[in-house]
Amino acid sequence: MRLGLDIGGTKTDAVAVDDDGTIVDRVRLATGFGPEAVIRTAIEGVTRISQITGVPVDGFESVGIGIPGQVDVVTGNVSHAVNLGFDELDVGRRLSVALGLDVKVENDVKAAALGAYHLMTAQPGLTARSIAYLNLGTGLAAGLVIDGALWRGARGTAGEIGHIPVDPNGVLCPCGQRGCLETVASGSAIARQWVTDDPIPARSLLAAADAGDAAALAIRSLLVDNVAAAVRVLVLTVDVEIVMIGGGLSAIGAWLLDEVRRVLTSWAVESPFLASLGLDSRVQLVPAGFPAAAVGAALVGAPLAGASRTDVGTPTGQGEKVATWQK
Amino acid sequence: MRLGLDIGGTKTDAVAVDDDGTIVDRVRLATGFGPEAVIRTAIEGVTRISQITGVPVDGFESVGIGIPGQVDVVTGNVSHAVNLGFDELDVGRRLSVALGLDVKVENDVKAAALGAYHLMTAQPGLTARSIAYLNLGTGLAAGLVIDGALWRGARGTAGEIGHIPVDPNGVLCPCGQRGCLETVASGSAIARQWVTDDPIPARSLLAAADAGDAAALAIRSLLVDNVAAAVRVLVLTVDVEIVMIGGGLSAIGAWLLDEVRRVLTSWAVESPFLASLGLDSRVQLVPAGFPAAAVGAALVGAPLAGASRTDVGTPTGQGEKVATWQK
Repeated sequence: MRLGLDIGGTKTDAVAVDDDGTIVDRVRLATGFGPEAVIRTAIEGVTRISQITGVPVDGFESVGIGIPGQVDVVTGNVSHAVNLGFDELDVGRRLSVALGLDVKVENDVKAAALGAYHLMTAQPGLTARSIAYLNLGTGLAAGLVIDGALWRGARGTAGEIGHIPVDPNGVLCPCGQRGCLETVASGSAIARQWVTDDPIPARSLLAAADAGDAAALAIRSLLVDNVAAAVRVLVLTVDVEIVMIGGGLSAIGAWLLDEVRRVLTSWAVESPFLASLGLDSRVQLVPAGFPAAAVGAALVGAPLAGASRTDVGTPTGQGEKVATWQK
Repeated sequence: MRLGLDIGGTKTDAVAVDDDGTIVDRVRLATGFGPEAVIRTAIEGVTRISQITGVPVDGFESVGIGIPGQVDVVTGNVSHAVNLGFDELDVGRRLSVALGLDVKVENDVKAAALGAYHLMTAQPGLTARSIAYLNLGTGLAAGLVIDGALWRGARGTAGEIGHIPVDPNGVLCPCGQRGCLETVASGSAIARQWVTDDPIPARSLLAAADAGDAAALAIRSLLVDNVAAAVRVLVLTVDVEIVMIGGGLSAIGAWLLDEVRRVLTSWAVESPFLASLGLDSRVQLVPAGFPAAAVGAALVGAPLAGASRTDVGTPTGQGEKVATWQK
């Protein structure tokens, strides 16, 4: 049995998965704010899963943490986790000492890519040795599983497609560029363009668009076109078999999937090249409620179906250099 | 000793490389046009290298062919090799029968990525477990070496970044989309925009731009900006350590490298995020005259430095489906 946590800005998902990666037990906690509270939340998550499953904490084959921010997977240090209330925290060492076992730490989007990959390969009849997990949350970023193993990149920044500019006349992105994908296809893009009291701005946006509001229609169209553009970038560049969409915008996920497929199909009508790639059949949604990042965190370092690379869960040869830039 | 051929539209490079991948002998032939002439050229290349090295044809550890078009690496079939004068040819089978040995066939850009990767890892002090080879020829496409092994993608189309649109108001691309990278950053882009009798239109373009021609300056600027954009797409998406530029535009390679680095540096001034990625120090030029695709073809299936994947040179689990679209 393996144990995984996904420490999010408000909620922490904790799961126990069996040797097949099937979720055996799960629990959801509120995430504390600030370094000490985050560590306490993580320890509580591990302890609760241990109690529910009856497996002692040191009886799990592995314990992994998915967490936002820039993660050094060798040291377990986490940087720039703004939503969790710290700039630097040695999460791996702190938890390893507190729990008396080795705790693996991984960026949450990359962990979710592993979890989504596992979900793909666990479905009967479905295999894919490469997927991209496209996270539509506050930002837009992807995690890549290539040839059956997580690909972090030479410096740990693979999948940062949210900062590929798509419109030279677009708005200034916090990253300093103009018209990045993230400025038009993300939760922050909606929040910036569609001011509302609704706790789920995307829902409010869709309702207004359905009611014929011209501004809402334009924002919605920009969103869908550019999620489709993100899928196109991932398939053209990496040629992953499947792009799985997840993240905070999954509140509108089913609608979004339909619309993105519609856009991809319309592009294929214009372009025989795109038609040959079958993009519309290669995009899927992470099922609502599936804790991809927690499952992926549990599986960091575990052998995955279809993996031919032997270094699953290890950093690249250059060491896990993390970019010093922070959104 | 391994033997590799790069069958180009006008010239065929043939090389013998030793166990370290060092070029021992090489020869250049004119490529015949049409299926029978191409096969004859390939046989002549193999025979000539055999004579020069004194190694019998069946004495090479491997014989590999890099060739333009869509390649099924399992069957050795090649489709849509317009510049070679055929639409379908069972290159692998034909050569295997004629030469009495197993001949591996690989797309030329992907073969060049292997050759460029070998060159990187063969340099003292330089290591990189991931590179992109960015081919600027008639078109624009990349080959990826990830984690020390060629990554062809789920369907053999990894690296087709030439068809990522960068300008919604751009010209119609033969692929059916608008404003693709290839329409502004490739040999065909220059030829379309800059009509000249010079057999090397890029050279004529640069001369006119240097002389202050406004149209030439605009075309040149678009070229450089979008080669830089291609580098950005490759690093943001795949996070390869190094992007190596090669291909037909290498006639202006040294100038182009300087200019692309200048653009990447100017972007870094505006964007702390891009600055943290150090793009300008991650782009290099394949040395003039280095037969990357021929060396890579020789190395298809050979163990490479830094490779941890075990399936070097084998297709993906889905089988090597090739896209049916043809530029």
